[in-house]
Amino acid sequence: MDISGFKWSDDPVALARSSETDIFVELIGGADGPAAAAVEAALRAGKPVVTANKALIATHGRALAMIAETHGAPLLFEAAVMGGTPAVKLVREALVGDQIEAVAGILNGTCNYILTEMEATGRGFLEVLAEAQALGYAETDPTMDVGGFDAAHKITILAALAFGGAPTLSAAEIEGVDGIELLDIRLAKDLGYRIKLVASAVRGPAGVSVRVHPALTALDHPLARVDGVLNALFIQSRKIGRMFIQGAGAGAGPTAAAVAADIADVMAGAARPVFQRAANSLVEFGSVSPVDSLGRVYVRLLVRDQPGVIASVSETLADAGVSIDSFLQKPAQGAGGVPIVLTTHLAPEATIAKAVQAMSLLPSLIAPPRVIRISLI
Amino acid sequence: MDISGFKWSDDPVALARSSETDIFVELIGGADGPAAAAVEAALRAGKPVVTANKALIATHGRALAMIAETHGAPLLFEAAVMGGTPAVKLVREALVGDQIEAVAGILNGTCNYILTEMEATGRGFLEVLAEAQALGYAETDPTMDVGGFDAAHKITILAALAFGGAPTLSAAEIEGVDGIELLDIRLAKDLGYRIKLVASAVRGPAGVSVRVHPALTALDHPLARVDGVLNALFIQSRKIGRMFIQGAGAGAGPTAAAVAADIADVMAGAARPVFQRAANSLVEFGSVSPVDSLGRVYVRLLVRDQPGVIASVSETLADAGVSIDSFLQKPAQGAGGVPIVLTTHLAPEATIAKAVQAMSLLPSLIAPPRVIRISLI
Repeated sequence: MDISGFKWSDDPVALARSSETDIFVELIGGADGPAAAAVEAALRAGKPVVTANKALIATHGRALAMIAETHGAPLLFEAAVMGGTPAVKLVREALVGDQIEAVAGILNGTCNYILTEMEATGRGFLEVLAEAQALGYAETDPTMDVGGFDAAHKITILAALAFGGAPTLSAAEIEGVDGIELLDIRLAKDLGYRIKLVASAVRGPAGVSVRVHPALTALDHPLARVDGVLNALFIQSRKIGRMFIQGAGAGAGPTAAAVAADIADVMAGAARPVFQRAANSLVEFGSVSPVDSLGRVYVRLLVRDQPGVIASVSETLADAGVSIDSFLQKPAQGAGGVPIVLTTHLAPEATIAKAVQAMSLLPSLIAPPRVIRISLI
Repeated sequence: MDISGFKWSDDPVALARSSETDIFVELIGGADGPAAAAVEAALRAGKPVVTANKALIATHGRALAMIAETHGAPLLFEAAVMGGTPAVKLVREALVGDQIEAVAGILNGTCNYILTEMEATGRGFLEVLAEAQALGYAETDPTMDVGGFDAAHKITILAALAFGGAPTLSAAEIEGVDGIELLDIRLAKDLGYRIKLVASAVRGPAGVSVRVHPALTALDHPLARVDGVLNALFIQSRKIGRMFIQGAGAGAGPTAAAVAADIADVMAGAARPVFQRAANSLVEFGSVSPVDSLGRVYVRLLVRDQPGVIASVSETLADAGVSIDSFLQKPAQGAGGVPIVLTTHLAPEATIAKAVQAMSLLPSLIAPPRVIRISLI
């Protein structure tokens, strides 16, 4: 394509302010630096802004929303979450007549690709990560993806839209997939689950809890069936019930389509608050205490093959007040000990943590217990 | 709820025109009669209209769009398709930066409930229909649902939105689920498929083909996994690729949520053409000739248990130029004959029709061949 007819600018801030700019589209990236400066300048000049910058919105969303509303400039960011799959429009516009109770999604294609491949090919995390890097699905420094930070940016934005709050990246609890072992993927499957990196925002009596962590999802749940680099979002709301959307989460084409849809929205002239309510009334999310949140977990132990181990494990849980949903002991794996896995019933997360702490002191343990949450959505 | 404070009117047209009416919400139903008269009156008076009336939009969509655009009044109908699941918003707004190639969905919860139950419980069509009527999932006269007409209204609307044309109900090819037998559900499953009522609109070189018919969907396709009264839509587009959404397709809560979202859109003040382009430029869809469209089918024969039958069936297909993808002969079913099922490779639908015609003349046949399309999406 010949782009010689377009004007080139080395100064994004000047471009943002230019009287020739009708809509400012920011595809630079980064929470701060030139992207933030240019977006802010455009909004202050009353120019509509379309951006794909998840870090910027997750970090400075409320401040930018206040500038946007003061200057009457729309601020749209469909491409920041799930690429071309319109998660933002869905949560921001289609559900305003409903009350969202929870959103949970597979928002990082790199992690989902790695987990899918580990299960399909029986290879370990590092080997599959190296392949993903070779294929261009993972960056040279994969921390943003595999550490869960990319998904945390996205769920922070969706939480703000779903519950009408300020994007609060600091409130998100983040755990990546880098600790996931093939053994757990296999044992989880034996129990009827698939391990996915689930990003969720759930409204409970104690507030909104925003989290990214590996989670066991039941094999017949739509999220468990999302394979490869696909992204997906599950929304639980009071009137509509359970809604599920799945599609391309990244890539040049989907991102371009999302940016184009935002530009069309700007041209349609709709005026909506950036995060469901007036920017100056947006409140940050706090963190929810583990005493106040209920959970279920999968616990995998490696124990010495000796009598009484199962009894001591189950007694420890019973003493802590956690009841067992399923229990599975597999044959000894060479020198690695005997894997014992169990899933718990619903219990306060603080209670579960205490039980795990007690289990980790059992003398028959070869390695610390591996705990993975079970998705409740 | 106390509604005595609200004004009651016996005349919907007068209400639509009233100076006290800001937005006219039509939930009467029916393509003509008071619903049509009131919607038209509201639009002519420049009032925004929100409706859940699929028959009205599928039948008079272009005429209403012209009135709406002449008088600058928005016309929104999210609740007309898939209840609270925002299929209209998705196709109308989120994909404007892309080029849609095909949409295919499960748009009628009654039919999907019946097919799901037949498979799950091994009961026949009429028995499950009676149960659906008792549960309120099917009307006393179930023709609109099981005959495919309800789904045809919905796909007609989605086709107009996806391809920027006039809703053309007359161009839709419609076949319901009333002819589906348990035997075919079981045989299809043996071949790796589930039978669903699929409503589709596909753009091909010869035009847009709009259809509702039972179709074999591969077991690992998202549409095959949509159970019970759920609705779902699959969208294939050039940039984003494959997108899938699933949710509640009907019911008071979801419908109310969709209507409320449309009202919020009216209040946001967005101005968009009703069907993607200026109403006076909307062209009706024609029908696509079976010579120009490719298809794959499942054919089930009941034949006498005698030598040479398989040879004659496969020769007939070969003579017609249709090649076989899979072939399955089951043990004889009492006096009912031997079921033979086959699936074809891709071929012009006219060629397939000729082959089926020739097969139906085979002397070993006990009953006419049962032909069901295989979903290509």
